Amino acid sequence: MADGKKMVEAITSMEDDFAKWYTDVCKKADLVDYSSVKGCMVIRPYGYAIWELIQRQMDDRFKALGHENVYMPLFIPESLLQKEKDHVEGFAPEVAWVTHGGNDPLPERLCVRPTSETLFCEHYANIVHSYRDLPKLYNQWCNVVRWEKTTRPFLRSREFLWQEGHTVHATAQEAIEETERMLNVYADFCRDVLNMPVIKGRKTESDKFAGAEATYAIEALMHDGKALQAGTSHYFGDGFARAFNMTFTDKENKLQYVHQTSWGTTTRLIGAVIMSHGDNDGLVLPPKIAPVQVVVLPIAAHKPGVIEKALEVTDRLKAKFRVKCDTSENSAGWKFAEYEMKGVPLRLELGPKDIQNNSCVIVRRDNRQKYVVSLDELETEISRLLDELGQALYDRAAQNIENRTYRCTSIDEIKQALAEHGDGFVKAMWCGSEECEDKVKELTGVGSRCIPFDQEDISDKCVCCGKKAWKMVVWGNAY
Amino acid sequence: MADGKKMVEAITSMEDDFAKWYTDVCKKADLVDYSSVKGCMVIRPYGYAIWELIQRQMDDRFKALGHENVYMPLFIPESLLQKEKDHVEGFAPEVAWVTHGGNDPLPERLCVRPTSETLFCEHYANIVHSYRDLPKLYNQWCNVVRWEKTTRPFLRSREFLWQEGHTVHATAQEAIEETERMLNVYADFCRDVLNMPVIKGRKTESDKFAGAEATYAIEALMHDGKALQAGTSHYFGDGFARAFNMTFTDKENKLQYVHQTSWGTTTRLIGAVIMSHGDNDGLVLPPKIAPVQVVVLPIAAHKPGVIEKALEVTDRLKAKFRVKCDTSENSAGWKFAEYEMKGVPLRLELGPKDIQNNSCVIVRRDNRQKYVVSLDELETEISRLLDELGQALYDRAAQNIENRTYRCTSIDEIKQALAEHGDGFVKAMWCGSEECEDKVKELTGVGSRCIPFDQEDISDKCVCCGKKAWKMVVWGNAY
Repeated sequence: MADGKKMVEAITSMEDDFAKWYTDVCKKADLVDYSSVKGCMVIRPYGYAIWELIQRQMDDRFKALGHENVYMPLFIPESLLQKEKDHVEGFAPEVAWVTHGGNDPLPERLCVRPTSETLFCEHYANIVHSYRDLPKLYNQWCNVVRWEKTTRPFLRSREFLWQEGHTVHATAQEAIEETERMLNVYADFCRDVLNMPVIKGRKTESDKFAGAEATYAIEALMHDGKALQAGTSHYFGDGFARAFNMTFTDKENKLQYVHQTSWGTTTRLIGAVIMSHGDNDGLVLPPKIAPVQVVVLPIAAHKPGVIEKALEVTDRLKAKFRVKCDTSENSAGWKFAEYEMKGVPLRLELGPKDIQNNSCVIVRRDNRQKYVVSLDELETEISRLLDELGQALYDRAAQNIENRTYRCTSIDEIKQALAEHGDGFVKAMWCGSEECEDKVKELTGVGSRCIPFDQEDISDKCVCCGKKAWKMVVWGNAY
Repeated sequence: MADGKKMVEAITSMEDDFAKWYTDVCKKADLVDYSSVKGCMVIRPYGYAIWELIQRQMDDRFKALGHENVYMPLFIPESLLQKEKDHVEGFAPEVAWVTHGGNDPLPERLCVRPTSETLFCEHYANIVHSYRDLPKLYNQWCNVVRWEKTTRPFLRSREFLWQEGHTVHATAQEAIEETERMLNVYADFCRDVLNMPVIKGRKTESDKFAGAEATYAIEALMHDGKALQAGTSHYFGDGFARAFNMTFTDKENKLQYVHQTSWGTTTRLIGAVIMSHGDNDGLVLPPKIAPVQVVVLPIAAHKPGVIEKALEVTDRLKAKFRVKCDTSENSAGWKFAEYEMKGVPLRLELGPKDIQNNSCVIVRRDNRQKYVVSLDELETEISRLLDELGQALYDRAAQNIENRTYRCTSIDEIKQALAEHGDGFVKAMWCGSEECEDKVKELTGVGSRCIPFDQEDISDKCVCCGKKAWKMVVWGNAY
């Protein structure tokens, strides 16, 4: 156990320093590495395998709803970016500019896409002519670049991977429905695949996407009580359509502007998973995105027949699960610590006695509970344990939200709740004015996260000015 | 049929203008669109679906051999690019340079990756320490940028999508084996998935990848007799390892340099498929990469029960094939032309009489052959027809190579063969000197494509200088 212990001790505990714990896990679980490219990350095989599982399962959900994947250019000419006023104001300060191709200066600067609205608009203007061409439901998986000052792996980096959906519709109604539909796809995905509960809501005016009429978001809560925006869905109305002249002739042969949406999720979902489920021994992975769902460890592997049996069981399980057998000469203790660090949901131990009894020991990563399982019932039991583990992750995360949700009716109550219990979701009423929104932030430190769809009737007065409340807002510190 | 005819007539015939035919197909089959980003392409849903099918099947082959996917940064600092002398000389003239982040000039220029050797080297230097860490078999699917002067969709564009494998090994022998293994993976993939025969060989010294010890390639032949390099695999020896200090301690505890490979294929494979199999009615897609393998067309769709039956058959076939049913009000003629243009391998026609007879008519895209098939045997027959079509595409492409391969023993013979029969693969002996290589190009117009693994004994004299021959070279014009 010496090796294993040593390895685990090398992680900072999350109670001591949550930020350090996070980067320790990212590094020690082999998710990322740094490079000489400041602010960009190397996503290592284990981290990328998680992303591939997220991609595959999310992409299936998009396609089931009729979305098609495309690929737009990496670059956006400066003049194209400038076509929609709010959009360029929001993004121009944080883009990377290409000025030279080889040895020649370019006639016009190109920015590396921070998002691709402008390119999609130009393309849609090209290909949409009639109501028969609508809706267009496109999505793109790609890299984008935003020149952030401070960066952290997965959470905020100068380059990140994401998907961006861009759709155009004949009517505002259809576009609004699409905006909401995709927000629900994200929320369901977080629940079913990442075992992560989220709050669905609308962003306040001051927090909208650059160029959007309305921005919706899902907000998750991390172990440390900070919120993390896990996905956004925007309704654009016909703002971009007017700027880019995206028109179509309707059934009455009249020229109309299209109505538009965009929606995105990024590699930051991996950061959300780490900070939602991880513990002081490392990662804890939801079974549906675990590159290895079961690690098979031969115990007393030098005894005759043990390794052979472990490999046989592994082969058998591969038909149904993502399984790995570690037959290396590392100690059992080292292996325990290693696969705990990597968040492998189930550890299957198989020693001479187990083999004699036609059974094995299975240990759950999340709560270390041990199960003696007959080899005859292995597939059924593993399926059951993976499901239970996923549900337990969800329940614990939901409990964390419950424990850290503070319903407040005054600025003082907010201050007190945060001081006593630490960061969390503050639920408080709001009159709707930007002035009060700013003042809450100024006085308590927490900003508005969203106006949740699930409203509660906490009070009839704005928590800040005391005037008539418009909506309940969820406030919090955020990543 | 009027609509359909009109549509087909809109393509230039390949005999009239092959280049125009190619771009017509790219546009009319909805594969790509242009944008205001010069030299970059928009890959539309139908084109991207082909790329996804290529990706998925190639990725499976990589993973089956133990390769893992990773993601490296998009940018390379100028100083990192400069570490390997030959490499920077080869690439610096054609990279895009980022000079500003937001409003601030960068302390050091960053190039947008034209290829990622330097980033992989830096990462491997970081993570490889002992022989136990070897081999590392990494691959990356991403976009790269090369500032080309003249561009064509898929064949040569300033940004393209590709995969780049990068591996490090303990010995030269292992690395050489990997280089050859991956070339074979590419060749087998071209044969089995793209139904495209290729010649495997080694590039001459003057044609090597910047920084490589040896470059191997697969060369395909297009309809017009021009060669297309469809994939490359490089052996680096320890050149980069010395430049980037990539060392490991071997079993005897001695410090050694790693030995390295890289290999890549790109979206240009789609261009190769178009020009290998397409005809004057449009695309002809290999069944394994066809987004729609069977299009079901109801005939006399207004008659009762026809559309219902077509949808029922479609649903049933979806379990085994990629199928689409077109119930739109477009004429049958328009639909025939549309799905021929898009290269859908099989068209299934279902009308009232067919339904009465419990049968349907299936038409093969490649040769228009018609088959009356019982609905009871649909799955078996479709499987068989798809296989036969794939084999026929391969056979025709192989026949094209056979017809356009000219074995020559003198410069005059080369000139004559090209003048008489047009472009093709010229097989001729070579002494091994760069001087003769250049002179053949100068005198005949065709450059060396590769030194094929399958050598033929055409003569014992160099086709150029008449001195002792070293190897047979395949020469040709290339995309």
